[in-house]
Amino acid sequence: MQNFTFDIPTKLVFGRDTQKQIGALLKPYAKKILLHYGGGSIKRSGLYDEVTASLRTAGIEFLELGGVVPNPRLSLVRAGIALCRREGVELILAVGGGSAIDSAKAIAMGVLFEGDIWQVFNDDLHVERALPVATVLTIPAAGSESSESCVITNEEAQLKYGHTDACVRPVLSVVNPALFATLPPNQAANGVADMMSHIFERYFTNTRHTDVTDELCEGLLRAILRNAPKVIEAPGDYDAWSEIGWAGSLAHNDLVGKGREQDWACHGMEHELSAVYDIPHGAGLAVLTPAWMRYVYKTNAPMFLQFAREVMGVRTEGRDADGTILEAVTRLQAFFRRMGLAQSLQELGIGEERLEEMAKKATGAAFGEEHGQGHFCQLKWQDVLAIFRAAL
Amino acid sequence: MQNFTFDIPTKLVFGRDTQKQIGALLKPYAKKILLHYGGGSIKRSGLYDEVTASLRTAGIEFLELGGVVPNPRLSLVRAGIALCRREGVELILAVGGGSAIDSAKAIAMGVLFEGDIWQVFNDDLHVERALPVATVLTIPAAGSESSESCVITNEEAQLKYGHTDACVRPVLSVVNPALFATLPPNQAANGVADMMSHIFERYFTNTRHTDVTDELCEGLLRAILRNAPKVIEAPGDYDAWSEIGWAGSLAHNDLVGKGREQDWACHGMEHELSAVYDIPHGAGLAVLTPAWMRYVYKTNAPMFLQFAREVMGVRTEGRDADGTILEAVTRLQAFFRRMGLAQSLQELGIGEERLEEMAKKATGAAFGEEHGQGHFCQLKWQDVLAIFRAAL
Repeated sequence: MQNFTFDIPTKLVFGRDTQKQIGALLKPYAKKILLHYGGGSIKRSGLYDEVTASLRTAGIEFLELGGVVPNPRLSLVRAGIALCRREGVELILAVGGGSAIDSAKAIAMGVLFEGDIWQVFNDDLHVERALPVATVLTIPAAGSESSESCVITNEEAQLKYGHTDACVRPVLSVVNPALFATLPPNQAANGVADMMSHIFERYFTNTRHTDVTDELCEGLLRAILRNAPKVIEAPGDYDAWSEIGWAGSLAHNDLVGKGREQDWACHGMEHELSAVYDIPHGAGLAVLTPAWMRYVYKTNAPMFLQFAREVMGVRTEGRDADGTILEAVTRLQAFFRRMGLAQSLQELGIGEERLEEMAKKATGAAFGEEHGQGHFCQLKWQDVLAIFRAAL
Repeated sequence: MQNFTFDIPTKLVFGRDTQKQIGALLKPYAKKILLHYGGGSIKRSGLYDEVTASLRTAGIEFLELGGVVPNPRLSLVRAGIALCRREGVELILAVGGGSAIDSAKAIAMGVLFEGDIWQVFNDDLHVERALPVATVLTIPAAGSESSESCVITNEEAQLKYGHTDACVRPVLSVVNPALFATLPPNQAANGVADMMSHIFERYFTNTRHTDVTDELCEGLLRAILRNAPKVIEAPGDYDAWSEIGWAGSLAHNDLVGKGREQDWACHGMEHELSAVYDIPHGAGLAVLTPAWMRYVYKTNAPMFLQFAREVMGVRTEGRDADGTILEAVTRLQAFFRRMGLAQSLQELGIGEERLEEMAKKATGAAFGEEHGQGHFCQLKWQDVLAIFRAAL
């Protein structure tokens, strides 16, 4: 086990009707806030009315900035920063999924950052201060409601970069699983693939003696595997959504990554797909993850055998390692299929054309500074290209 | 799943040599602190010198109050409160195990509380404010390094009461598993029994749809069952101690109890034993827990079957429920025996004489207001007496 610091100060208020407490919960933090959201879905669902009523009751003044899109864009972030500076906003409240929250985090950093906010993403600058961010979660997926990371797309440059800093971890997040009942099945499935990937990126490690976090990773994955099909088949299943929602937050607050080297190659590769093709992040991960697994498992077959046995329920005794591991990957793919997720890049509308370009961008080779991708097995651009091709 | 708030703001700094950072870590919190500890073990081990050197380097002024004993006492808490008030102490740093930390928490509340601190425990008063508490942990057991509870013994009245309030949760805890290598085996074993009980008290519930926290509880318990015998057999096993130390903190920061009704009968019963006979808390829990399990399991046999299968590894298919569950309890007892823990009250020097008195105190019946004990199965004083007798 590696040395670590466990410090997850987000206050998570979880359960039925919790969104109606948002005004009272925010009162200690701010008098004037920015309400940041996507399209009209929160207005159609009535959530917008509930949140704004709660803010009014608590006497919290709010401005609004809607229009966040999936793979949230730098241009809106810049607009949000200007608005907050002009109006003296003290806190950003994102109402939505990972895109609205990530956009809010970027705005929160940008308001107190002296240069242009893209610098922070492009040069991976460490940022000390940001406005506080709070969230009302509508899509369990990105885990951004309790993570210290965010991902922004520079739509002009076709670049999608993540950034991690403690100052952007939300101070408060409200999660009511009943709000997830109206999600379209594809969004639900993408979200499940995303949260599973957050665990996989931490689970597959070469660090030894990680019993506790191995158990936590495997337990969360099993809980997701059991409950995810239920929310697809019966979107009104509050109990199943509760498990998915709670697992999604725990998947990315970094609890399950403590004391172990983490990988993050699939996220790095997927960001290239999303930046160029604007596909949903979870959909890209569901395609790339099994291809990555097949490509890298020999790096540490015992780790993958443990995955096969403990997560995918494959019987491992007296069988050859390769066959067992590949059966686990096949089972994972069958699960993704059952969730309605694509299992090839072509199904996502992605062909051979730009694979090499994306592989080079994912590893830094395109910019003359190849840093590779991932830690479980360090991938060069040729490896990434091979994984992309295997996923075609 | 019940609604819940997840809010565990303790910063946990975990790993080798972390105690040497304590001065730098505390600098943002206080200029003048009370160093609170037990007997001479931290002086013999060199930990005292490391901590005080780190404080001096950081320019933090410190007073000292040693002398904390197991089942920490009200008299020392009162002395600590007087000292801190007189000297204008800003933070209490406990260096030790649960006793030193609990004593520090009681002092921290008492300094800002207007009446006598025992009132808080006796009348279970809600307290809003306390001095900040930090810890350097030397015994993984009580989980007090990241919990919001503490237990104090009023030695004159032979009363041992717990108290829970958010204000006493440590702001910072430093856990270096290498410090556990010098623990005597009985203290190591008592600690393991204590942390397992913290999970059992949360795990056994009648709340339905608790997949995620079921998995977390079961995973932590399995990690403890695997690693605890290693630290008894090879006390210098850093890796095994790391698992035990990390599991012990997660066992009691309430992560694994979120969304479920918790029990706490075994803790309530054990506090009576410790208050009267001054036995180690973990030792009492190791005796009472199996007796409690046999007494209550029929309340919710499926929950206990899950425990048998997922935690104790008992094959459950095609077998009668009672036999399976009782085998799991027998296995738990065999584990405790292997750890060197007593499995009867008589081995702890406790006879029949005061069992009825303790049963009545544990349930409030002794004070004319029977509130019972536990939530999984509510116990009246006659039930507690039956469990005590079964444990004789």
